[in-house]
Amino acid sequence: MTQGIKIVTIGGGSSYTPELVEGFIKRYNELPIRELWLVDIEAGKEKLQIVGDLAKRMIEKAGLPIEVHLTLDRRSALKDADFVTTQFRVGLLDARAKDERIPLSHGVLGQETNGPGGLFKGLRTIPVILDIVKDIKELCPDAWLINFTNPAGMVTEAVLRYSDHKKIVGLCNVPIGIEMGIAKLLDVDHSRIRIDFAGLNHMVYGLDVYVDGISVKDKVIELLSNPENSSFVKNVEGQGWEPEFIRSLNALTCPYHLYYYKTDEMLKKELKNYNEGTTRAEVVKKLEDELFELYKDPNLAIKPPQLEQRGGAYYSDAAVRLISSIYNDKRDIQPVNTINNGAIASIPYDSAVEVSCVITKEGPKPIINGDLPVAVRGLVQQIKSFERVSAEAAVTGNYDTALLAMTINPLVPSDKVGKEILDEMLEAHKEHLPNFFSKVEA
Amino acid sequence: MTQGIKIVTIGGGSSYTPELVEGFIKRYNELPIRELWLVDIEAGKEKLQIVGDLAKRMIEKAGLPIEVHLTLDRRSALKDADFVTTQFRVGLLDARAKDERIPLSHGVLGQETNGPGGLFKGLRTIPVILDIVKDIKELCPDAWLINFTNPAGMVTEAVLRYSDHKKIVGLCNVPIGIEMGIAKLLDVDHSRIRIDFAGLNHMVYGLDVYVDGISVKDKVIELLSNPENSSFVKNVEGQGWEPEFIRSLNALTCPYHLYYYKTDEMLKKELKNYNEGTTRAEVVKKLEDELFELYKDPNLAIKPPQLEQRGGAYYSDAAVRLISSIYNDKRDIQPVNTINNGAIASIPYDSAVEVSCVITKEGPKPIINGDLPVAVRGLVQQIKSFERVSAEAAVTGNYDTALLAMTINPLVPSDKVGKEILDEMLEAHKEHLPNFFSKVEA
Amino acid sequence: MTQGIKIVTIGGGSSYTPELVEGFIKRYNELPIRELWLVDIEAGKEKLQIVGDLAKRMIEKAGLPIEVHLTLDRRSALKDADFVTTQFRVGLLDARAKDERIPLSHGVLGQETNGPGGLFKGLRTIPVILDIVKDIKELCPDAWLINFTNPAGMVTEAVLRYSDHKKIVGLCNVPIGIEMGIAKLLDVDHSRIRIDFAGLNHMVYGLDVYVDGISVKDKVIELLSNPENSSFVKNVEGQGWEPEFIRSLNALTCPYHLYYYKTDEMLKKELKNYNEGTTRAEVVKKLEDELFELYKDPNLAIKPPQLEQRGGAYYSDAAVRLISSIYNDKRDIQPVNTINNGAIASIPYDSAVEVSCVITKEGPKPIINGDLPVAVRGLVQQIKSFERVSAEAAVTGNYDTALLAMTINPLVPSDKVGKEILDEMLEAHKEHLPNFFSKVEA
Amino acid sequence: MTQGIKIVTIGGGSSYTPELVEGFIKRYNELPIRELWLVDIEAGKEKLQIVGDLAKRMIEKAGLPIEVHLTLDRRSALKDADFVTTQFRVGLLDARAKDERIPLSHGVLGQETNGPGGLFKGLRTIPVILDIVKDIKELCPDAWLINFTNPAGMVTEAVLRYSDHKKIVGLCNVPIGIEMGIAKLLDVDHSRIRIDFAGLNHMVYGLDVYVDGISVKDKVIELLSNPENSSFVKNVEGQGWEPEFIRSLNALTCPYHLYYYKTDEMLKKELKNYNEGTTRAEVVKKLEDELFELYKDPNLAIKPPQLEQRGGAYYSDAAVRLISSIYNDKRDIQPVNTINNGAIASIPYDSAVEVSCVITKEGPKPIINGDLPVAVRGLVQQIKSFERVSAEAAVTGNYDTALLAMTINPLVPSDKVGKEILDEMLEAHKEHLPNFFSKVEA
Repeated sequence: MTQGIKIVTIGGGSSYTPELVEGFIKRYNELPIRELWLVDIEAGKEKLQIVGDLAKRMIEKAGLPIEVHLTLDRRSALKDADFVTTQFRVGLLDARAKDERIPLSHGVLGQETNGPGGLFKGLRTIPVILDIVKDIKELCPDAWLINFTNPAGMVTEAVLRYSDHKKIVGLCNVPIGIEMGIAKLLDVDHSRIRIDFAGLNHMVYGLDVYVDGISVKDKVIELLSNPENSSFVKNVEGQGWEPEFIRSLNALTCPYHLYYYKTDEMLKKELKNYNEGTTRAEVVKKLEDELFELYKDPNLAIKPPQLEQRGGAYYSDAAVRLISSIYNDKRDIQPVNTINNGAIASIPYDSAVEVSCVITKEGPKPIINGDLPVAVRGLVQQIKSFERVSAEAAVTGNYDTALLAMTINPLVPSDKVGKEILDEMLEAHKEHLPNFFSKVEA
Repeated sequence: MTQGIKIVTIGGGSSYTPELVEGFIKRYNELPIRELWLVDIEAGKEKLQIVGDLAKRMIEKAGLPIEVHLTLDRRSALKDADFVTTQFRVGLLDARAKDERIPLSHGVLGQETNGPGGLFKGLRTIPVILDIVKDIKELCPDAWLINFTNPAGMVTEAVLRYSDHKKIVGLCNVPIGIEMGIAKLLDVDHSRIRIDFAGLNHMVYGLDVYVDGISVKDKVIELLSNPENSSFVKNVEGQGWEPEFIRSLNALTCPYHLYYYKTDEMLKKELKNYNEGTTRAEVVKKLEDELFELYKDPNLAIKPPQLEQRGGAYYSDAAVRLISSIYNDKRDIQPVNTINNGAIASIPYDSAVEVSCVITKEGPKPIINGDLPVAVRGLVQQIKSFERVSAEAAVTGNYDTALLAMTINPLVPSDKVGKEILDEMLEAHKEHLPNFFSKVEA
Repeated sequence: MTQGIKIVTIGGGSSYTPELVEGFIKRYNELPIRELWLVDIEAGKEKLQIVGDLAKRMIEKAGLPIEVHLTLDRRSALKDADFVTTQFRVGLLDARAKDERIPLSHGVLGQETNGPGGLFKGLRTIPVILDIVKDIKELCPDAWLINFTNPAGMVTEAVLRYSDHKKIVGLCNVPIGIEMGIAKLLDVDHSRIRIDFAGLNHMVYGLDVYVDGISVKDKVIELLSNPENSSFVKNVEGQGWEPEFIRSLNALTCPYHLYYYKTDEMLKKELKNYNEGTTRAEVVKKLEDELFELYKDPNLAIKPPQLEQRGGAYYSDAAVRLISSIYNDKRDIQPVNTINNGAIASIPYDSAVEVSCVITKEGPKPIINGDLPVAVRGLVQQIKSFERVSAEAAVTGNYDTALLAMTINPLVPSDKVGKEILDEMLEAHKEHLPNFFSKVEA
Repeated sequence: MTQGIKIVTIGGGSSYTPELVEGFIKRYNELPIRELWLVDIEAGKEKLQIVGDLAKRMIEKAGLPIEVHLTLDRRSALKDADFVTTQFRVGLLDARAKDERIPLSHGVLGQETNGPGGLFKGLRTIPVILDIVKDIKELCPDAWLINFTNPAGMVTEAVLRYSDHKKIVGLCNVPIGIEMGIAKLLDVDHSRIRIDFAGLNHMVYGLDVYVDGISVKDKVIELLSNPENSSFVKNVEGQGWEPEFIRSLNALTCPYHLYYYKTDEMLKKELKNYNEGTTRAEVVKKLEDELFELYKDPNLAIKPPQLEQRGGAYYSDAAVRLISSIYNDKRDIQPVNTINNGAIASIPYDSAVEVSCVITKEGPKPIINGDLPVAVRGLVQQIKSFERVSAEAAVTGNYDTALLAMTINPLVPSDKVGKEILDEMLEAHKEHLPNFFSKVEA
């Protein structure tokens, strides 16, 4: 390894990039980055330039010797990389808007990660990530792939199952958000909190929670049974659980559980957004436009505070602490998506899980916390089945498999409605689904 | 063992009893019953008398030396029994009507076995069956308990988990109905068909289907992808699967899958019934009244053909062939509910499953057919989680646990609606839920 | 399928063949064989002719229209076969003599199936069987391979793991021998006995034993605790277990357990044979010479009774009843070697086990009998580890892997002695181990 | 919790105690001990006084405010303890001498932990530890029991299986010894080494080894294939592995593996010791006598360097770093004996394993490192079977179960020899086996 670290960020033109750059700057002393390559595609060229220029200004202001490279040539960027981060969005926010709006037009939640929208996000993303992985195998086989691209669970599952590059970690800001929320709820510093996380991406539970190593789970559950305390995590608006429900569930939930344990209320809310043109994609798009206006300002050399509304809170923290722990063999505990290998008995041995891991230089190693509570195993398995069938559909481009994935999704009411949504979405996303359409044409 | 077999039927006043009696008569040569005890409770005294008299006439007409005993004294009946069959209904059809109508009044399917209705049927039934099992342990510890009482999966789970009487088999007419339907579809005699069944009660899949030992699964799936062929099983009106869905599912479904893979259509249909006063309980109630009128006829000495509309088609066949195979150590293959022990890898080792078994004198032994397809594991796990949490609620009488069971049921849209349904149903079934209300009062 | 069955027997010149032919004759009415192809290699040409002529005389005498073909051309024989049976011995009895004598010369039991001798028998046999399987895949892909060639467990494991032909059943006469012995001990007809077998080939336990479907295990264990009753199985001379040992083991053993639970006594006995030139291979060789003299007699048209001393008692019964049950989809229960798939929880899911199965036209399906008793899991796992590492050594021709297999064998006292035996045996069997020596030369 | 920690050491009169005291002194700043209670039994009163006086002098010299209490009253000591350490030896070294010498007199290795000697050490120890655990449950239910008493794996298994106190950690100095040895071999500081340990106590393997987080396993295996490097761990004299064996094993071994992979050589060596009166117990006894002479010296106020020859090297380090990591919620990685819960797939879920764990205030949590290599699973299972059956024998006092444990031990050649050894050892240890003999008398 040459002196210093080479990091490649695919989807470098993302509005999140300043987050990441800020994180790299803050931890430079433990993570001496030599080169940061921001990679994007032709369609994202302009954004890449804007974000890249901001990144350069930020680094210059910090007085650090990090070289920032902007490129559309992924392969030249990957050569000898130490870490590759992926945060791209195939089809951009327009695609997300379709992922959300088409299902809603059928009275079904889109849910861009574990719902029908997530299926399509997976269908678009998985072939691309497998392509990137092929390049990594060739050009930087020792590099760790840190994937932020959603649906992060499905993507991690697909890479583990359909490639032979095992150095992938799926990363999400939901667990760190829960930690932060609980810390605030208990009014203690975040560093004193530890949660035993187990489950899947966006379907993760906190099996226990500690302050200074002592379980405070009972207290936290009691606090959460007060509806006023439940909206502690941003991004998805919190709604209170029925006190008796959360008590008997006896585990911390994540915001995405609302889609499954409060399906009717979420649907009502999102249908309202649908009608008002304020679905998440639409809101985010507006935010992004504003952000890029800010980023253009040649006097801006810090991450603008407005970025926090974007929803990626703590992404930077989560990402940089993970990379640093791998690089420095810190052996601290972080929740990430990795191969199960028995950590959760009721999930297949070779599947991706989101679980508390010790982070070593050789990557994350899951910690055993016992099995999931009986009551949640069903829903978790259902999402896992959905992830696996979706990943298979993405790789094979098989229509029937895609319909199977759609129908078994817990948010979809029937094979018939599933087929209607599927057909409409396939058509809408046609240009980003070559696996499906090249075959049809052939 | 004294010469001949002693069979005790709890819930003997059921309208199904003539089915069973007919079965015993037909197979008397291989199943020499000495005594048949029909047991019921005070509230069912009149029906017991009517059905019992018919049973006596049927046996007399057949010229067989089977003694029929009618009694309200369960314990004296159980003494030294060889087989105990249970087909009782706590709260009778009125309770079932509530199980169906209360959820529907909240826009939710009741589904009397695996839905909210099934939860309440379980809450009413499980304490009674555990009581019966206690008597069996004392009075006839070597007897096999053949349980037909729904929800048969949850009841079997509860007995396996909360009693130490392991000689229980849960029996359902759904698998035999599927066999019959497939035989008709293929136009071959039923005896030539064998299906590898695996799953849970009312959530069972056919993993393969054979004619004369040769797999015809591809042909059957193709036939089932034609909507005209799909309504092959009575009881729940068949609706066609989307052809691409059934092809990619690549397994035979049971009628109850409609509740999960066609939730919206089933709900629509049942809401119509709800409004017209023609829910299943209401229809069945009318049927039963008519049946009992028929049964009263002192000239009737056979099972009246009208019974077939009752929905218990093949129950007699299923029950008597099971009892005979145990009694005669036939080692033939039958689908029943029993302890998993690894037959289905993705279901807990010690849980009840519905699976093809070799039936020996020592009871059913599951056959290994490989694991469930990935796509169905989620839904199966969800029902298993529901069954386990429901059984726990029934045993403990814990309100929070009951709410947890209700909320994790895939038909229930939220903890809030779940709580509303729960509260209303608890109140409606109050008299049959001593575990819940004695505690409240205490 | 043409009318009638085509059976191919590889190693057709074996002295066992008349057994098999007798079996085919006896069951002709249920197993209408059209063609029986006896295949052997150049070195076995003469024996093939002798045995083949006897087979023809036997069939002629029985008046059956079975064509017998003798050939050295395996591929032409395999074309369109329905069943292939393998009973060959690479290196003939001379090789077996080395398998037994070389370890003994180092004070170590050879044990031609699960010991050092078994390792070498596996190293010689597995490449050949994988070659045969390749031909089967090409020439008769629907044929069932019924393998009698030892070490049958290791061979089945190797085919399951290193080929994609899954239609293999490993067959052994040990379980049927135990059934016969127990029947005799209890003085009941064999047909009334059923034993729940579970374990590995030559390491199989009887977990329960039934007469007419009723467990008589306690009685049998008590009988077996009387040393006079323990020598009920031929082939390996029976020695009595310590009564307290067999009682606490609480399972039926097979004769090969003597090598592990009475290692010292078996070693003493075999060292005596070694010194006197009466090891099993030497005894069998003499027996075989005598048998072939008998077979040559043109007046002989039945299986000579002397064959029974050869050690393959009941092979014919076991083999022909298996083939018939597959052919006729009998769904009866037989103990065979097949893929585990969860039948025995403590053995890997994808490994070969010897276990009671329902025999269907689609092959054997294991029956669940619960897990192995804790006390025997260790030894069973040890043989399974040995089988898997041995199979890997056979396929790769890797010296280190072969040494690993040798050293982890429970009969081998150390890596050092293991290496001495290994080196000497590799040299002695050089001509039959091309995987090892072609590499060395290259 | 009162200010400061209360530690109770049962078997406080052990010659190891000064090790422990030295460790407590060294880490006082992170582990502020308020009270150290040394507990022993009447027979150990004198030694307790000698060791206790030395401990007091050591602490006084260090100028620390730790109160040292010496007592024969276990229950008063346990009251409100924070940590309980157990290092007692039922029957003292005389019993160990019998554990070693009686088997050797039958030509069998005694092996005081996983061999016949270990069985008897377990039979003597387990009832006592279960008694202590009962007191802990009553008097200090939140205390962690840190057990050093051998056989530590069997003892941990017994407490997990036969008590409801789950706060037990079994600790051994073997893994830390391996770490130290490897550090020396690689000439790097111990703190830079990490090993993925997995297996059972005294049957533990190093699945990977890292320097600064980078795997150096290949290099270490290569070094270990040089016999000169293999004797890196004290206590059991190292002998070189055959290079090809250790390469194909491809895992680090522990010294106790010599008993299984070099049984013949170990037996030869120990028979020599037996004849010369220099078995380990005899050597240790002499060492202990000398140590106690040293301890008596009122001028001695440090751990005398001679203690290192005693064999407990690093015990102090291992013990104190474990206690400190629990107390301080350090979340560092240490190899200990705890419940498996899926960490090693091929070992039962609820069994004790020795495995790398994250040490938290809530105790050790195993890290997933994948399953054991196929080649070692058999031997590991065999010791696990032995541990479980031995623990059952200890609890039940059942003779047959004890014979079963003895016979399935891989060092015992037959049930017959096993019975001879068992009978002789039962007689020799009679006074310490009330479970066995009270029953006989009753």
